[in-house]
Amino acid sequence: MNTSGFHVAVVGATGAVGQQMLHTLDKRDFPIKQLTLLSSARSAGSSVTFRGKEWKVEEAKPESFEGVDIALFSAGGSVSKLLAPEAVKRGAIVVDNTSAYRMDPDVPLVVPEVNEEDIKLHKGIIANPNCSTIQMVAALEPVRKEYGLTKVIVSTYQAVSGAGAAAIDEMHEQSQAILNGDSFEPSVLPVKGDKKHYQIAFNAVPQIDMFQDNGFTFEEMKMINETKKIMHMPSLKVSATCVRLPVVTGHSESVYIEVEKDSVSVKELQSLLQEAPGVTLQDIPEEQVYPMPAYAVGKPDVFVGRIRKDLDEDNGFHMWIVSDNLLKGAAWNSVQIAESLVKLGLVK
Amino acid sequence: MNTSGFHVAVVGATGAVGQQMLHTLDKRDFPIKQLTLLSSARSAGSSVTFRGKEWKVEEAKPESFEGVDIALFSAGGSVSKLLAPEAVKRGAIVVDNTSAYRMDPDVPLVVPEVNEEDIKLHKGIIANPNCSTIQMVAALEPVRKEYGLTKVIVSTYQAVSGAGAAAIDEMHEQSQAILNGDSFEPSVLPVKGDKKHYQIAFNAVPQIDMFQDNGFTFEEMKMINETKKIMHMPSLKVSATCVRLPVVTGHSESVYIEVEKDSVSVKELQSLLQEAPGVTLQDIPEEQVYPMPAYAVGKPDVFVGRIRKDLDEDNGFHMWIVSDNLLKGAAWNSVQIAESLVKLGLVK
Repeated sequence: MNTSGFHVAVVGATGAVGQQMLHTLDKRDFPIKQLTLLSSARSAGSSVTFRGKEWKVEEAKPESFEGVDIALFSAGGSVSKLLAPEAVKRGAIVVDNTSAYRMDPDVPLVVPEVNEEDIKLHKGIIANPNCSTIQMVAALEPVRKEYGLTKVIVSTYQAVSGAGAAAIDEMHEQSQAILNGDSFEPSVLPVKGDKKHYQIAFNAVPQIDMFQDNGFTFEEMKMINETKKIMHMPSLKVSATCVRLPVVTGHSESVYIEVEKDSVSVKELQSLLQEAPGVTLQDIPEEQVYPMPAYAVGKPDVFVGRIRKDLDEDNGFHMWIVSDNLLKGAAWNSVQIAESLVKLGLVK
Repeated sequence: MNTSGFHVAVVGATGAVGQQMLHTLDKRDFPIKQLTLLSSARSAGSSVTFRGKEWKVEEAKPESFEGVDIALFSAGGSVSKLLAPEAVKRGAIVVDNTSAYRMDPDVPLVVPEVNEEDIKLHKGIIANPNCSTIQMVAALEPVRKEYGLTKVIVSTYQAVSGAGAAAIDEMHEQSQAILNGDSFEPSVLPVKGDKKHYQIAFNAVPQIDMFQDNGFTFEEMKMINETKKIMHMPSLKVSATCVRLPVVTGHSESVYIEVEKDSVSVKELQSLLQEAPGVTLQDIPEEQVYPMPAYAVGKPDVFVGRIRKDLDEDNGFHMWIVSDNLLKGAAWNSVQIAESLVKLGLVK
């Protein structure tokens, strides 16, 4: 551990994303002078290993943030709503991985490859976008910059780890029950707090998060609204259909886009994305090279493939975007924001 | 068994679709006077139960079709190419469930709810469309008729049973291996005859059938071309992304459409599809009612839900279409064509 560095707090340290945050902070050798691991009262008291040392996890309280420079929140929206302002009040900069502040006009919503400069406008809180949004905008921003972007229609193929550890357990248990010919009772997915629960093993469930009045789910509206905010394109046409799959980790997206510039070729798009920061092109159809979630797990990049020209719309293209939803979709993007704070000299 | 009725042959009687064909013929009480069960040399000699009786499966040969009135083919494209003309030569009408003749201008491609009248133009062979096409056009035809249809963008979520029994076995074995922490070697999916094989359990694979020169897969081109042919809309804008999932049976589709008529409401679309033949509306978001593959298995209908208006395009709508790919996608549609042949007096 560096003796020079920052006092970092991780809120939700025992959760799936919190664990990945610690792993990523370590891997990136983030300059940490002091570490405070926080959680709900329920998980408080447990221990977590970081840089070869056992750390006690304490219950997150307002006074836990005394002296903290950067607080990474990933313990649910209600915890963020309650405690992020308390952390800010005590001088911390909050990187919040929940949906609590994402659409707040005073809160920058940041994917560093796309809108790192927005971090400078922060008033204490910086929001980490929704996992399915992050990977999409990381792939679309280079396209927007070079060719202009007018329309996005996305259908997602999302992993259960986005719904937390209980959803992963449920999927594994259901899978085993079905393979054994045993019965089971769904109790977590599609949404823990919603009325009905459905089988996820060997199924596809077209509901992620709660339904809104317009028939879209909250997850779909997150993708639509966050994309416009991050890309600074309030009038971009975006629509989304979000579907949960029996995949542990790794979100996939079938994305149709229309660009402004005429006569763009697939080769040009491929070259552009090959060079794009944080993006890895996997697009050789004749050798069956394309991204897949099971092979993207544990990697920080956004993988893009299956790029092809629409057969009817001259400016229309299709692509397939895959990324580890716990890394680029959550922990890695949060740590990237923390790194940007350091790089931009915004944290002392 | 009726003594009046038809001499029916099922080619590929031991396969997954062949078995469903027999089951459906029985369930529909199809008038069968004589039954001839055929297969490849490999499966010949085995026995199959139909209407409480054991039937011997014989090797399919040109002379097997002597006296046959209706021959249901589902034993792969090469068998159809070789033997369908032989069956026709001997007076049989062929309902072919492979891709061998689908785009042949002399062969009607039929989904009875959509274009039953096309059957009258047959010259011996009637083609059963691709599974993912059938369920989509069954849901879109009522929309086209009432409001006009200009554009379709579909992303599919397809079950492994579409790739045959070996693909189902592979998925189950891989799932168990992963749950046990054991290693495994993919050998069937995404395409048995292609060079590389990938994990399907807990994964999503954006390749169904072989890649074409334009970057689309053959499955995607089937959806595009067959939709235009069945709906008699050569200039309809259609594009498709086809993805294989760890689902045993039941294809799902996220479909974006644009209609011609202005100011169509979601309620109007719902009412229309509620009355549409072969379609069951499952669309009550506030009660979490929407179609899912695991709950559609064994049912002949096409299930439609998640109908919502696009937030940017006035004439744009999204929907989620699910059906049992072995039934409406294959066996049931073939038997429906046979029933139409009888109803239209085209078979004596």
